[in-house]
Amino acid sequence: MTLSFGDQLQQGRALVVGASQGIGLGFVQRLLADDRVTQVYATYRQLSSAANLLALSTDPKLVPIALDATDEAQVAVAIAQIQATCDRLDLLINCVGILHSETMQPEKSLRQLNAPQLLKYFEINTLPTALLAKHSLPLLQRSDRSVFAALSAKIGSIEDNRLGGWYGYRASKAALNMLLKTLAIELSRKSPHTIVAALHPGTTDTRLSAPFQRNVPPEKLFSVDRTVGQLLTIIDALTEADSGSFFSWDGSRIPW
Amino acid sequence: MTLSFGDQLQQGRALVVGASQGIGLGFVQRLLADDRVTQVYATYRQLSSAANLLALSTDPKLVPIALDATDEAQVAVAIAQIQATCDRLDLLINCVGILHSETMQPEKSLRQLNAPQLLKYFEINTLPTALLAKHSLPLLQRSDRSVFAALSAKIGSIEDNRLGGWYGYRASKAALNMLLKTLAIELSRKSPHTIVAALHPGTTDTRLSAPFQRNVPPEKLFSVDRTVGQLLTIIDALTEADSGSFFSWDGSRIPW
Repeated sequence: MTLSFGDQLQQGRALVVGASQGIGLGFVQRLLADDRVTQVYATYRQLSSAANLLALSTDPKLVPIALDATDEAQVAVAIAQIQATCDRLDLLINCVGILHSETMQPEKSLRQLNAPQLLKYFEINTLPTALLAKHSLPLLQRSDRSVFAALSAKIGSIEDNRLGGWYGYRASKAALNMLLKTLAIELSRKSPHTIVAALHPGTTDTRLSAPFQRNVPPEKLFSVDRTVGQLLTIIDALTEADSGSFFSWDGSRIPW
Repeated sequence: MTLSFGDQLQQGRALVVGASQGIGLGFVQRLLADDRVTQVYATYRQLSSAANLLALSTDPKLVPIALDATDEAQVAVAIAQIQATCDRLDLLINCVGILHSETMQPEKSLRQLNAPQLLKYFEINTLPTALLAKHSLPLLQRSDRSVFAALSAKIGSIEDNRLGGWYGYRASKAALNMLLKTLAIELSRKSPHTIVAALHPGTTDTRLSAPFQRNVPPEKLFSVDRTVGQLLTIIDALTEADSGSFFSWDGSRIPW
């Protein structure tokens, strides 16, 4: 397979949002090891859980940035910090997302649904991508070929929904998909070299999927490194005509 | 056209949420005039803007209820109030929604997007349908054939999005559509006689569309009465096999 990313991302600059662990951290590791990439900005929300990311910062290519991506003021400051040392971005990938936490469990049924949790899903899974797009656009526009991607999920496909449940997570990812499609339309006019993609990573062995791995066949549970490799292959191959699409880990398209 | 609603909704009881004006008020008027319907519960948020609804309450079929449908405690109280006088609901239609207000304008571009407004769209356009479903299910289940419907919008179709813009409104309606699809799946197991539908009313001459009517050809701008008639025709004809679908005013299906 030919990687167009390499040809076009000479001295590439990447921003990985939500990079303290899981797939985000995996992207940072891969990008740091990639000679085509000269700078990796990587954000973490809490210092206390960013040890694995910060341990990588002996590599001068890595610039860790503290960022709560649900806070527009912080997004603006983080992008300004990047802009101070760098004239463009070639790749932005947002890996921020929540499925469960100590206080949140995805709703198995209607009865478990409640207002604060539903809104929390939108705040964490949907909003940051909008804020990042708004503030990073000037940097992405300056690249000859840039990619703005976010981790979505096949479970966020309305068309593909057969099982039900997980109201908040599903709705927040459907909303994210709409934002990405709408963004792709706006950028097709303003910044046609910036390609927008929604990416389904497949079930990956991270904290997010940990409580739900029991029924996943082993061959369908990917390591972080495998997932990141598969998603970078897709990102590498994206053309302008792909902008605004929803891709599965194997490169196939997922219906909305 | 045969109306199955009439056959099945003997002594029907309906709840219209967001009924102080616009399409919600139009539903109340039509349902009050319909001999098949014996009781119409109709909610309004603010007394100050509910004069037209309250003026109808000389009709003993109408029970106006104060309700902010974004507040779960209020939803629970409103449903309990209905339950105290009525053993079932045959129709629930949620007409609550916002596109603009004195302080909110739909985003023409990324630059106009901001966090509080984006979250507000989800709070008003998405959340209430989830809360209403959760609390009304016991009443809907007791009907031989009930319909749970919400006003969605074609502009909330990700697939159909060609123009871009209106990020928050679009995303909140896509999220609403996902909730309705997920609800339909859950109810197909628990309450198969309850049919769930997302309805696109078409551009209707209400406060919601008022600032955006300029480019709408006159034949595509519907009166409230026409819209309500068209949507009730769809509601009347819905079968269990239709549950979880997204219908346009003319009965055609809209892709997600």
